[in-house]
Order: sequence, then C-alpha cells, then structure tokens
Amino acid sequence: MKIYDYKGFPNPARIRIALAEKGLTHAVEFVTVDVPAGEHKRPEFLARNPAGAVPVLELEDGVHIAECTAITEYLDHLDRQPILTGEAARERALIHMLHRRAEANLLDAAATYFHHATPGLGPHIEIYQNREWGEKNRERALAGIAVSRPGPGPAALSRGRAVHHGRHHRLRGSRLCRHRQHRGAGRLVRLKAWRARVAERPSVAHA
Amino acid sequence: MKIYDYKGFPNPARIRIALAEKGLTHAVEFVTVDVPAGEHKRPEFLARNPAGAVPVLELEDGVHIAECTAITEYLDHLDRQPILTGEAARERALIHMLHRRAEANLLDAAATYFHHATPGLGPHIEIYQNREWGEKNRERALAGIAVSRPGPGPAALSRGRAVHHGRHHRLRGSRLCRHRQHRGAGRLVRLKAWRARVAERPSVAHA
Repeated sequence: MKIYDYKGFPNPARIRIALAEKGLTHAVEFVTVDVPAGEHKRPEFLARNPAGAVPVLELEDGVHIAECTAITEYLDHLDRQPILTGEAARERALIHMLHRRAEANLLDAAATYFHHATPGLGPHIEIYQNREWGEKNRERALAGIAVSRPGPGPAALSRGRAVHHGRHHRLRGSRLCRHRQHRGAGRLVRLKAWRARVAERPSVAHA
Repeated sequence: MKIYDYKGFPNPARIRIALAEKGLTHAVEFVTVDVPAGEHKRPEFLARNPAGAVPVLELEDGVHIAECTAITEYLDHLDRQPILTGEAARERALIHMLHRRAEANLLDAAATYFHHATPGLGPHIEIYQNREWGEKNRERALAGIAVSRPGPGPAALSRGRAVHHGRHHRLRGSRLCRHRQHRGAGRLVRLKAWRARVAERPSVAHA
C-alpha cells in the first residue's frame, strides 16, 4: 500500500494516527505530495483523487481510496477487528456521529477559515477566497468545539474506545485552530487539557 | 425507535430510503418536525441534535443519533448484514469514498446554494446568507456531478450493491438540483437517465 500525503498537515495526520493505532505504519510506503507547491492540484494527482486533496491510499492493484473516513474504514477492517470505527450497530453509529460532528463543525470549519480568511497556502493555491465566509467559519469552529464534545451517550461506551475516532478529528481541528491567527480556541482550558492528554498517545505524538 | 424528520426533504429521504431497503420502515415511529416553521432550531429539538437538523434517530433508551451517515450505520448493522455500507474492508472503503464525495460535492453543495443564494426556507430560518458563497456552490454542485460518478473501481464490485449507499446521496443531490432555480443539473442527460432508473426502486419511489 502507498499513502500519498504531506506530513504535518491535518488530514494526513488523521491517517497517520489511524495507521499507528492499527500497527500498520510500516506496512505502507509514504509518497510526499508537494502540497505547498500545488502538486495536489495537477493532472497527475487529480487522476488519483479528482477532489485534489491528500491523503490518498493506493492499493496494490492500483485502486485509489480518497477521503479520510474511507481510508480509515479500510485500515480498520483489514484485520476484521474494527477498534477505531466500532463493531456493533450502536457503537458504530455513535462513533460516526461524533466523528461527523467534529469533522463538519470543527475541522472543516477551521480549514475554511484558514483557506478563506487568511493567506492560507498562498495565492497560487487559494485562487478563490470568500473572506466573509472564512470569518463566519471562525465563529462556527469555535462554536463547534462545544458541539463536538462527547455527550453522556458516547462516554458510557465500553473501554472509552468509542470516542477514539471522533477524537482524531477534534485533535486535528484543535491543532488547526492553534495554527496562524486562530487564537480563540487556544484559550479554552478544557480543550487544552484534553489535547494534552491525547497528545501523550504515541500514535499522536509522531503523526 | 423514533425518527424525527420532515417528509420530502433531502436528508430525511436518505434515511427513509435506507429504512425501506433494510425492511425497517414499519419498525420506526415517524415524528414530524415542522422544519418550514423553524421547529428544528428551537431548544426542545436542539436538545436532541445540537446541530439543529433532521433527521434524528431516537433509540428506546432515549439516546439520539444524528447525522445521516451515522443513522445509516446503525440501521445497516442492526441485523449484522450490512447491505448498504459494505462488509469487507475494500467494499466499505469504496462505498464510503463514493458516499462522502456525493455528499460533499453534490448534496451539500446544492444545499448551500439553496440556503445561501435563493430564499431557501424563508427569512425566519435563513438568518445568515452569503450570496456569493451560494453561487459558488452552484458551480461546485454541477462540477460535483462528475466527481461523484462511480469510477471503474467501484463498478467492478460484486452485485452492484457497493455503489448503493453513494447512490442515495447522488439521488438526493439531483433532486435538490432540480428544486427551485437550480436547472443546470436537469439538463444533464446521463444524470436524468440514471435518476429514472433509481427512481424505480420502491424504497426511492416512496421516500
């Protein structure tokens, strides 16, 4: 398997964490896509993922899997022991809900702020910016920190593993919030404490 | 189980289709949330889903599952025979990818156009609109029809069921494109032909 990504960026890190949690880091070859130079928007890469985004998983037979959630489903089910996405109906549903909330309200919102209301990755990549929409998403990201917090349902799940997958997304979102001008999130004491706890996991420390 | 929704709207229809495909329609009680009147933004409903959106699944013990993908995971795994979301790693990954692409690039883009660049659900609900962002998403939705089309990988999957879950989202997206002023998508011959085929399924005809 190959992973096309760019180390240190939020979505690539989601998959690097998943790989480490599944013990699969050494089973993949990492291929660097020069995102700051816009390589992910060129025809050769668009043939792998028409959405023009990293990471992308390439299977041995050349099939490409894009979208972090899809790649995580693949990695998590390879050994038929899904520790990240859950096994039974209820657990799967709660993990998916938390994960989707964290992705939509926190990670995607923070990324929209970054790409629209800051210089983002530079004028050669940010060819369309809507500053007002970017600023609106700064508000959404800050509000999303509250919405993406696990409620009593998920917290009651077995061995605390159920919130795991959702946590990845909150973590990446919180890192992105810290990035550049987005300092509002950094003042939130509970988020910082949670982030410090999660950062102790080896999978996260090296992502 | 209860489903809080509003019949005929795109996201509620996704779950009504999933229920029908799983033979579970009569196992749930439907509770109408008066979305046109803004009931989904009131405190009583926000306690069920802080995102303020339908549909929401309420389990017997009062736990709420929001987000269509999470509800579908629940319904599909109740009998441990996931016919909508796939079983093995590769199938699950490809279905998730198609589904996420259709959701992000087509359904969400068309909905953003609807809520931002048209009167949407009316001024009492559309309290923030960014017309330029709405128009940009009209372009994204039309481009997304191409991106969300199943490629050679998924088409080669067994019994054609793999594209099923992704199809729901394309269908809802295409309905939304047809809705109101969004006529560009309606002129696409292949989409219309595909839509006519899918509309023959009983689950879709009654959603």
